[in-house]
Amino acid sequence: MQNFVYHNPVKVLFGRGQISNLGGEIPAQAKVLLTYGGGSIKANGVYAQVRAALAGRAVVEFGGIQPNPRYETLMQAVEIVRKEGVEFLLAVGGGSVLDGTKFISAATHFDGDPWDILARQAPIARAVPLGAVLTLPATGSEMNFFAVVTRGETQEKLAFGNPLVYPRFSVLDPETTLTLPARQIANGVVDAFVHVLEQYLTYPAEAPLQDRLAEAILLTLIEEGPKTLADPADYTARANLMWCATMALNGVIAAGVPQDWATHMIGHEITALHGLDHAQTLAVVLPGTMIARQDTKREKILQFAARVWGIREGTPETRIVAAVEKTREFFESLGVPTRLSDYGVSADTIPVIVGRMEKRGMTAFGERGDVTPAKVREILALCV
Amino acid sequence: MQNFVYHNPVKVLFGRGQISNLGGEIPAQAKVLLTYGGGSIKANGVYAQVRAALAGRAVVEFGGIQPNPRYETLMQAVEIVRKEGVEFLLAVGGGSVLDGTKFISAATHFDGDPWDILARQAPIARAVPLGAVLTLPATGSEMNFFAVVTRGETQEKLAFGNPLVYPRFSVLDPETTLTLPARQIANGVVDAFVHVLEQYLTYPAEAPLQDRLAEAILLTLIEEGPKTLADPADYTARANLMWCATMALNGVIAAGVPQDWATHMIGHEITALHGLDHAQTLAVVLPGTMIARQDTKREKILQFAARVWGIREGTPETRIVAAVEKTREFFESLGVPTRLSDYGVSADTIPVIVGRMEKRGMTAFGERGDVTPAKVREILALCV
Repeated sequence: MQNFVYHNPVKVLFGRGQISNLGGEIPAQAKVLLTYGGGSIKANGVYAQVRAALAGRAVVEFGGIQPNPRYETLMQAVEIVRKEGVEFLLAVGGGSVLDGTKFISAATHFDGDPWDILARQAPIARAVPLGAVLTLPATGSEMNFFAVVTRGETQEKLAFGNPLVYPRFSVLDPETTLTLPARQIANGVVDAFVHVLEQYLTYPAEAPLQDRLAEAILLTLIEEGPKTLADPADYTARANLMWCATMALNGVIAAGVPQDWATHMIGHEITALHGLDHAQTLAVVLPGTMIARQDTKREKILQFAARVWGIREGTPETRIVAAVEKTREFFESLGVPTRLSDYGVSADTIPVIVGRMEKRGMTAFGERGDVTPAKVREILALCV
Repeated sequence: MQNFVYHNPVKVLFGRGQISNLGGEIPAQAKVLLTYGGGSIKANGVYAQVRAALAGRAVVEFGGIQPNPRYETLMQAVEIVRKEGVEFLLAVGGGSVLDGTKFISAATHFDGDPWDILARQAPIARAVPLGAVLTLPATGSEMNFFAVVTRGETQEKLAFGNPLVYPRFSVLDPETTLTLPARQIANGVVDAFVHVLEQYLTYPAEAPLQDRLAEAILLTLIEEGPKTLADPADYTARANLMWCATMALNGVIAAGVPQDWATHMIGHEITALHGLDHAQTLAVVLPGTMIARQDTKREKILQFAARVWGIREGTPETRIVAAVEKTREFFESLGVPTRLSDYGVSADTIPVIVGRMEKRGMTAFGERGDVTPAKVREILALCV
């Protein structure tokens, strides 16, 4: 096992009715900025529950945070926080609203051009405290300190992470997810599944507990994902999906093991250029990754094949292909296509993506630092 | 899944050499009380590493905290903390030192008789901040807010829990465990194993992820426990055991599911009366619990039999018996006997234990509140 530091102070309030308890988690005198997205929280009753829990407090609102939250939009919120003297941010929505609010938190007191937080990983010294009400299980943002932000102007989608932007608390009420469109639920299952694989499908690190914890999440997603699509009123299935998505990226399964994240990095380029949903890009890139990098990921792919898909017969090569096919079938069964061509994207994008990554110095990433421009090209050629 | 609140702010520093980093986790000007047990940390080099990490600081020491830490001893430390103006407690040792230090933390500023913290679960308003260097993987105390303390005078072994006594940090360096006697390692495996079962072997709560996470720990303990006994120099096995023991009782597998703890409560009485090691009492009581309570634990025992021991053939009754036998054999294989008579304790103790529990009002506990005095009698009769 590798040495590690694990420290996750997020307080999770999970279950029916927990929104009513959020008032107790925010300092009584703090002026609050309530951030949200396109307004679905007003249609499904979540907004009313949140406002009721905040009754009697000074609250400002900022709606309209997009999927793949835009830097330009978030900077408008930063202006409001500064001007209004906001002392606490409450993000109500999915991963994009949470990520965007983390960026608002970090940018408000930043001395310099806030874009540097993303483009240059510039250190931040202070952040506005934030909390969250999660309405879409997928990104894990509710229990980690990472955020991904997109700049419209330059079509760049970049990430940052800092313990200062850990939510102080996150409310996870599965009832808020009952009205989600099937596409968003399916995306959430794929997103959580690939988050686990970015931390699991690397190389053996003599960490058998972490391996089994990761497999526990994968097996549960395979079991519960289809249930939650089959019956949107199934609270239990939504609850299990929600907790799987959180556990997939809260640091527990990452402690002491190598991590990859190349599939995400390549996927971000596809979203930035072609507008695919984040999870759709993962469903497309993962199978190519598994095939193109099977030499260095061999032992873990075979373990994944055996323990997650029950594939134990045949040569290593055929087991690897079978595991990729099972994974692809799983994503497709959820309604998430797994090839670029399914989204109208051709092989013409490959040199563009490789060129953009090279320009930003992304020329050696993944768990062994061996995902070079040539390897990205090879992966993407398998994704068409 | 049941509603839950999960909040575990302990910072874990895991791996070789992490003791050298503990200075950065303690406020520079704070006067520190270093607490420890019988002095093994002086023989194995841990004490020297800790003192080096604390170089230049004001440090007072308090050694001699016993296994099953004594109230009377801990109150001597409380006097020192008050008199010396100690502002930070650093516990260096196993679960007993950590538990004892949590009690010192809670008792120092307690207004009234500190025994009430244990005997009446009296609320505490303030605690002295504490950190830990764990040297014995077993109790999970390094990443939770529970403590168990024994009063010599009355032979009572009682517990309390409060978020104020969460360690601010815990250093887990598996190298500190390489010199442990086999008996303590074996006890640690049994302790962690039964901690998991107290949170798993209850009734189905539609929480498949939590079930699989619990099984992940059990399977890893079964795999790594014997390795760590077979080769005390095996750092990797010790590291895996250490992380299993922490994950077994840090709240992760408890989130959203029922909990039992009857085996622990009965076991505490056996330790208080007869001086058995804590883990020895668990190894004795657990098999009796599984048999005597199989009617209400049936589904989970059968799941345990199938997924942990691979027992899938036969009637439910024979599978339950087989699972109990496999568990008993596992404990025995580690060198931990599983019957009261193995420790020279006869059936005469049964009415004494039942009488003591009745006197303290412990007449309906366990996950369904159905462990009555009659049921305790039945369980213990199976443990002789």
